[in-house]
Amino acid sequence: MAERAADRVDAERLWRRHMSMARHGARADGGVNRQALSAEERAAWRELIGWGRELGLRAATDAAGNLFLRLDGSQPGLPPVLSGSHLDSQPSGGKFDGVYGVLAALEAVQAVIESGTSLRRPIEIVAWMNEEGSRFVPGMTGSAVFIGAMPLEDMFAIRDGSGMSMREGIAALHAAFPELPQQPLRRPVAAYVEAHIEQGPILERERIPIGVVTGIQGKRTFRVTVRGEEAHAGTSLRRERKDALLAATRIIQALAAEIHDAEDVVKFTIGKLDVTPNAPSVVPGQVVFSIDLRHVDSDILASVGDRIAEVCASHAAPCTVDVAELTSAMSLHFPQGMTALIRDSARELGIPSMDIYSAAGHDARFMHRICPTGMIFVPCERGISHNPRESAKAEDLATGTRVLVSALVALANDEAMPQHA
Amino acid sequence: MAERAADRVDAERLWRRHMSMARHGARADGGVNRQALSAEERAAWRELIGWGRELGLRAATDAAGNLFLRLDGSQPGLPPVLSGSHLDSQPSGGKFDGVYGVLAALEAVQAVIESGTSLRRPIEIVAWMNEEGSRFVPGMTGSAVFIGAMPLEDMFAIRDGSGMSMREGIAALHAAFPELPQQPLRRPVAAYVEAHIEQGPILERERIPIGVVTGIQGKRTFRVTVRGEEAHAGTSLRRERKDALLAATRIIQALAAEIHDAEDVVKFTIGKLDVTPNAPSVVPGQVVFSIDLRHVDSDILASVGDRIAEVCASHAAPCTVDVAELTSAMSLHFPQGMTALIRDSARELGIPSMDIYSAAGHDARFMHRICPTGMIFVPCERGISHNPRESAKAEDLATGTRVLVSALVALANDEAMPQHA
Repeated sequence: MAERAADRVDAERLWRRHMSMARHGARADGGVNRQALSAEERAAWRELIGWGRELGLRAATDAAGNLFLRLDGSQPGLPPVLSGSHLDSQPSGGKFDGVYGVLAALEAVQAVIESGTSLRRPIEIVAWMNEEGSRFVPGMTGSAVFIGAMPLEDMFAIRDGSGMSMREGIAALHAAFPELPQQPLRRPVAAYVEAHIEQGPILERERIPIGVVTGIQGKRTFRVTVRGEEAHAGTSLRRERKDALLAATRIIQALAAEIHDAEDVVKFTIGKLDVTPNAPSVVPGQVVFSIDLRHVDSDILASVGDRIAEVCASHAAPCTVDVAELTSAMSLHFPQGMTALIRDSARELGIPSMDIYSAAGHDARFMHRICPTGMIFVPCERGISHNPRESAKAEDLATGTRVLVSALVALANDEAMPQHA
Repeated sequence: MAERAADRVDAERLWRRHMSMARHGARADGGVNRQALSAEERAAWRELIGWGRELGLRAATDAAGNLFLRLDGSQPGLPPVLSGSHLDSQPSGGKFDGVYGVLAALEAVQAVIESGTSLRRPIEIVAWMNEEGSRFVPGMTGSAVFIGAMPLEDMFAIRDGSGMSMREGIAALHAAFPELPQQPLRRPVAAYVEAHIEQGPILERERIPIGVVTGIQGKRTFRVTVRGEEAHAGTSLRRERKDALLAATRIIQALAAEIHDAEDVVKFTIGKLDVTPNAPSVVPGQVVFSIDLRHVDSDILASVGDRIAEVCASHAAPCTVDVAELTSAMSLHFPQGMTALIRDSARELGIPSMDIYSAAGHDARFMHRICPTGMIFVPCERGISHNPRESAKAEDLATGTRVLVSALVALANDEAMPQHA
């Protein structure tokens, strides 16, 4: 029997690759701003493809702009086991959200190769396009299109703030990597495992290095457009104004009061708000803001979300308001076969683990619909994420990767392949 | 005696020049976006200088980026009479705000020349730099620096949203017009008259073509910075969040309630608000917004403005807030000699006029500090301004110009030169 693959995980190499990736889109404050389809993301692609090439992996893309690095197994015709996450970040993001899942998968594949472990199925490392949804709204479009949950043309039509479409961005991406073949969308996948920092404080507080993710909190997102009328700040009378910003702030305060729960379980966030024309001496004519609403209980998520349009309408006068729902995803639970596999992989390596629920959304949400899917969480400092101060320990990143490689080897060799949910 | 200069005002030519100027920064909706120190403003300069050259006027600039076109009188050593306004616009501005004052002065000078009217003093047409204060905050910097109310270095240090300084912008402007000599700042001026659309509904409602402006409403502007902490929209607990946007909306609602007066005299506007990082799934870490506060009664303006910092502070928790006052200008009254001159000029031409108070700020505010200053208002459609739908009648623009040229000729010939306030 070959050496155990998990023992070849190299914590220092894994850390070094995180620091190297963090150069692409580095912010002066130590954070990362690497937007989907940006030059910075292309630079990250180039570096990742280079590391894969050194290991003999074959890179490919698809029509949705996802990136795959493939290690063949003894039966290349079998559907692959996929593992990865994303390389794009929030505008003021950190070095680990997304990147860790991609680099952990790369490290796992390298450990498989270096340990001489044999595989039946291929393993593919994947970097999904536009998980964050900050430049192009909504996010997770790469995995959504991959599984067929979003039509490719719908993704192509999404535009950033400057008016550039994802169609143009992906065409430019493909032009920058002409050597990459394009894999078909909606191809069969045997299983999917995504490693990620927790983005919450629980593992750190409990001093447990591995979170076996049992499910993902549901989420609904909305775009609210408040329309008023531009007017001169010095001359127009208050009773004649239709001030879109005053209406929007009134609506936001009303929503915050309406959605408030004493248990502090619902997550309600207005993260983006844009004023038009946004000039100090012009009464605002239009305000557009986002709503991000999450709850672990799908019934509560449905009922709270359904009240939003009415609350907005009843506080908009003398302006008008339009509420558009952009995405709706109910809470989900990963199949027990996958959580058991990850739990057992940790136990066999002597690593403590605990079950944990994901409050954040991930591409695993979409992969769950087409194949057995699981996630591995590792601690992050003080639970801080989507923030330049996001941090994690090199040893914790390596521990998560050791559990990942054990699970991937088991899945690639069909040992106890779990049922799809 | 020569032909009366006012009779040579050409309504059609004046209108045609407005339409021609509106091409520089034309918006698809018929409005104008011509920011200070932009390529569009430079194009407007070039056209204006060309028209001046055809009339034999000498163009000059100064260190603050103001533009002057001079018609000499019989005694060129005397301080000039100035007349003009500005060429920059709001982002969604119209074709008349500012431009009218410049083109009316040009038309007045052309009428003086064509009528063979002799002048003792020179007349200079002026286009002040950055009146609007939308790209570079605050506005009216050109006239403020010209009279010495703002140090040149303070103006140079102002930066736009992209980080470009006015120092760089003015250097580029001067480089684009190397043929223009630079006049000194703080040079003596005999008198200043500014023509402008009313930007309010009174003249149209009263069906009177000329407003003799008796004074300008006081104005204080502030920049409010609310600082919270960025966090993940899906994982961070409400009780642990420091959401800068929720705090800002609470503060804005409190300010609107506090500043509300039953008489609807106070003008309170939050026209600009910027969220950082402005991403849908990140709890906002910072919000910066503007306050524009105006009142005809300087005592009330002072006391209401002085309450702002306290209202902000008492609604900021758990965030912190910082309130910086950017500009403070009390209400002012133009000298009676100037209002009488404008009133008499209209009466002698058989044109009805009424006294009117300016609710909007103008460069005349600063010129009032160094020389006898007056303003002439003409009606604008429905009082709409700072809006692409801003409009005025060609005949009204010409009528205002006829009164202007009469007043300018009187001032340039020292007939009844009014006392400085």
